[in-house]
Amino acid sequence: MAEHLRIIPLGGNGEVGKNMLAVEYGPDILIIDAGIMFPENDMLGIDFIIPDWQYLRDAQRAEHVRGIIITHGHEDHTGALPYVLREINAPVYTTRLTRGLIELKLKTHKLLDQTVFHTIQAGDNITVGPFQLEFFRVCHSIPDAVGVGITTPAGLIVHTGDFKFDHTPVDGKPTDFAKLAELGGRGVLALLSDSTNAERPGTTPSERVVEAAFDQVFREAKGRIVVATFASLISRIQQVATVAARYNRKLVITGHSMSENIRIAQKLGYLNLPEGLVVKVEEAGRLLPSETVMMVTGAQGEPASVLARMSTGQHRQVGVMKGDTVIISAHAIPGNEEMIHRTINRLFQRGAEVLYDPIAPVHVSGHASQEEHKLMLNLVRPQYFIPIHGELRQLKAHARLAQQVGIPPQNTFIVENGYVIEFDDGEGMISGRVPGGYVYVDGSSVGDVSPEVLRDREVLSRDGFVVAIVQRDSETGQVQGRPEIITRGFVFEREAEDLLVGAEDAVVNTVKANHASGKTLRDKVKDALSEYLYRETKRRPMVIPVVLE
Amino acid sequence: MAEHLRIIPLGGNGEVGKNMLAVEYGPDILIIDAGIMFPENDMLGIDFIIPDWQYLRDAQRAEHVRGIIITHGHEDHTGALPYVLREINAPVYTTRLTRGLIELKLKTHKLLDQTVFHTIQAGDNITVGPFQLEFFRVCHSIPDAVGVGITTPAGLIVHTGDFKFDHTPVDGKPTDFAKLAELGGRGVLALLSDSTNAERPGTTPSERVVEAAFDQVFREAKGRIVVATFASLISRIQQVATVAARYNRKLVITGHSMSENIRIAQKLGYLNLPEGLVVKVEEAGRLLPSETVMMVTGAQGEPASVLARMSTGQHRQVGVMKGDTVIISAHAIPGNEEMIHRTINRLFQRGAEVLYDPIAPVHVSGHASQEEHKLMLNLVRPQYFIPIHGELRQLKAHARLAQQVGIPPQNTFIVENGYVIEFDDGEGMISGRVPGGYVYVDGSSVGDVSPEVLRDREVLSRDGFVVAIVQRDSETGQVQGRPEIITRGFVFEREAEDLLVGAEDAVVNTVKANHASGKTLRDKVKDALSEYLYRETKRRPMVIPVVLE
Repeated sequence: MAEHLRIIPLGGNGEVGKNMLAVEYGPDILIIDAGIMFPENDMLGIDFIIPDWQYLRDAQRAEHVRGIIITHGHEDHTGALPYVLREINAPVYTTRLTRGLIELKLKTHKLLDQTVFHTIQAGDNITVGPFQLEFFRVCHSIPDAVGVGITTPAGLIVHTGDFKFDHTPVDGKPTDFAKLAELGGRGVLALLSDSTNAERPGTTPSERVVEAAFDQVFREAKGRIVVATFASLISRIQQVATVAARYNRKLVITGHSMSENIRIAQKLGYLNLPEGLVVKVEEAGRLLPSETVMMVTGAQGEPASVLARMSTGQHRQVGVMKGDTVIISAHAIPGNEEMIHRTINRLFQRGAEVLYDPIAPVHVSGHASQEEHKLMLNLVRPQYFIPIHGELRQLKAHARLAQQVGIPPQNTFIVENGYVIEFDDGEGMISGRVPGGYVYVDGSSVGDVSPEVLRDREVLSRDGFVVAIVQRDSETGQVQGRPEIITRGFVFEREAEDLLVGAEDAVVNTVKANHASGKTLRDKVKDALSEYLYRETKRRPMVIPVVLE
Repeated sequence: MAEHLRIIPLGGNGEVGKNMLAVEYGPDILIIDAGIMFPENDMLGIDFIIPDWQYLRDAQRAEHVRGIIITHGHEDHTGALPYVLREINAPVYTTRLTRGLIELKLKTHKLLDQTVFHTIQAGDNITVGPFQLEFFRVCHSIPDAVGVGITTPAGLIVHTGDFKFDHTPVDGKPTDFAKLAELGGRGVLALLSDSTNAERPGTTPSERVVEAAFDQVFREAKGRIVVATFASLISRIQQVATVAARYNRKLVITGHSMSENIRIAQKLGYLNLPEGLVVKVEEAGRLLPSETVMMVTGAQGEPASVLARMSTGQHRQVGVMKGDTVIISAHAIPGNEEMIHRTINRLFQRGAEVLYDPIAPVHVSGHASQEEHKLMLNLVRPQYFIPIHGELRQLKAHARLAQQVGIPPQNTFIVENGYVIEFDDGEGMISGRVPGGYVYVDGSSVGDVSPEVLRDREVLSRDGFVVAIVQRDSETGQVQGRPEIITRGFVFEREAEDLLVGAEDAVVNTVKANHASGKTLRDKVKDALSEYLYRETKRRPMVIPVVLE
């Protein structure tokens, strides 16, 4: 009797299976990707989020993980690996560039020595436990990205990874249509496919159009050029380098993450930087502005980034001046729009010319749009379709496309993370749900920021806090002296003296009028003080009474 | 000798002149619009923002304000009026619908009786002090919007208000091309024009396309339909009503602001709701889902809105169920994307079908795109061009369009709020800057939330706070008992006992080791405790020591 095949996207209720996904056949488990998510604006103080793999911890499942496949080198697919590897001791299967980028990360976490890597390349066909893996090349905004066909005794499933169909990619290596068609010809039980841009009509433009836009900017710019992009967008960095060499500009690279990524990509042969092209920032200072181009981080407007500090005049070495041309070569991650706009406005304010999407075609997405999705579905012609890598709205949009190309709605599984899709004798169904969710990483702590703490931060962020300390003689019950009121984030203390004296009175009067003690008394003080403050200000700071006896 | 003509957009460094603008001729002043801005995600706890009209308070200028023109009834053009009118006693010139909507607001603020209104309509030509005003109709996403030509002895300026060129508007009244051409023919000194969509190529679609999209949805929907939009989008509400009547659905209106706006618009004849169309929510409960359509607020995902509460199952009267179709008929105000996406995901989760831009053409912008801007510029053919209503990036984009149609760059003034553009003898120049900025409104307070308070809220929102209270015998200097540590938003207290005991030790040891007192001692305790907490958690909560003697 054949065992069941189970597919389980792991993580919270955000982008399904984007960051981590488990494929099981019988007791054997394969993990695909182990990435981080970035917190939303109201996840206050959180650095990043990793999936909760509670399910894999249970019932000794971790021991049955035969391998971890990483499809490409972006943070949302690799960033949680250091945390996973501490608990799950399984070999990592990935391509050369992805491995190089992961090794940087594991070194920082002091996990490099104990990790077993198997370097694979597109076209490889390997066996891991009961899984026969066939890797195929996909285009994405980083080189050496792959998708994978997974043959099990229960059938063949195809996982696209992040992809687009770029006919003229910068590295000359398009998505492997032939392999997808060949897999399709064999009969695919289920397709798991990237839904990021499933809401976007048409076809995502080729990475190549960016080079034409860069060429025009470089040809016309009189002063310095600054290009902001993601540190991992290796092919974009290649394009800047190519055009810089064409127009005799020296390339300056700033920022630790970008420098490190470039070093690895160049060492492994994924970046071709002509001899003498790259110079240090000090050297660039001795060149004319028209002889330089700077690559910087900060395309999301992150306040600590090089670009943001340049825009506010706070960068130690480089300012922005009239005559500079700044290119923002990245899309806005939802939630970052305000910060990006602010940075653009500030750069304009300092006299720079700023080019960004949609003002100029200086960025294209790395993800397939609707027409490409239809092509993928028609190439693979799966029996079942599981849209992944997207919020529910994107999965829904992707499912609509699948229906258009003839996949019956009942054969499409739109699930959230934690749901189990099970295939039994060629028949698919949703068979249950496993525990899981998100784990917040904040400072050095993993997972100890509870919903309570976040809720407190939210209250504090809105109206601040008021701590009222009152001393009471434990024998006579008399209030000693005046209460001490400490407040931050509520009112500007120096201009709110009357309000705070009133608050002291409210505390004293409540303590005097009540013979209670302990929590009862504290609650009464809290209520009286909260009420007084709301009446006076229409705000609700967090109120914390302290009674010392 | 002719006096100088001066144009001064007022407010902080956001959307220039969007919320308030002063036009001066000699001592006489005209105000155009008095609106609010919505806070950005990092303006923590702020309800909304009004422009700072410090400049008008100075040198008795308030007395010289001859009138306040309100171009249309949206919050970002009317919302600050109750605050302005408390300090500036000038008559308000506006159209009937705009007046009706403003009166609602002034009633709440108990300012209605003391306000003088002059109701004008498009086509009116009136004189206010030295200003001759000619109002002309513009299309926008609310009826009865106007622009204004202002003739002064120093020349004619044209202010577009918020506009688009809609050839087939819902109310049948297109932007007044002829008047714009006629003004242009007279010779326009300066054009002030809405830059909101200046980054957007092409032409903004007509409001009419939304009706076609609605018609299709209503024709096909089997269950209840819910339409979320802005309470002020009167023409959208008209379209829903028209299509609802066509398909024999009863209309339920929820939310105070939407109900009030509809009441006024209907009373004044700007909304045509067939007899018996509108029913109460209780009545709708007795109808089949296929017989109803609900208009709700919450198109921005605001957590307290009807739609958001429906999406989380927290609305008292109405749930969302399988078979419902929800239409989000609004664009995302930048910064709100995450909240909107979350609401859409939750609606899908509850089994509803959700339609939104770009999935379906259920919303169009009320602002002109690039081709329309070129038309406006070519109709008015101004000598000087002043892009307004936009952030710097949008003004820059608008200026590029002006150059394309032949306005010399030196005749285009891209300024920020507070800059003075002065015309002397037909010659324009930037002649200075006046004090101003934004005023934060938070609860009942206007302007007393200082940057310090916001900075504190930011620190609190990231890592919370720790208050350490230590009692010391003032004579012996001995620490009495253990310190009391109070913390919120930092760690989950129940799971951080060891950490907090360590914090107590750090406090005690510092106090014991130091013979200092007062601020010196507090600083030492603060440093020691901050350092301990950072070492243990890599987080930086706000640390506040209290030494009681």
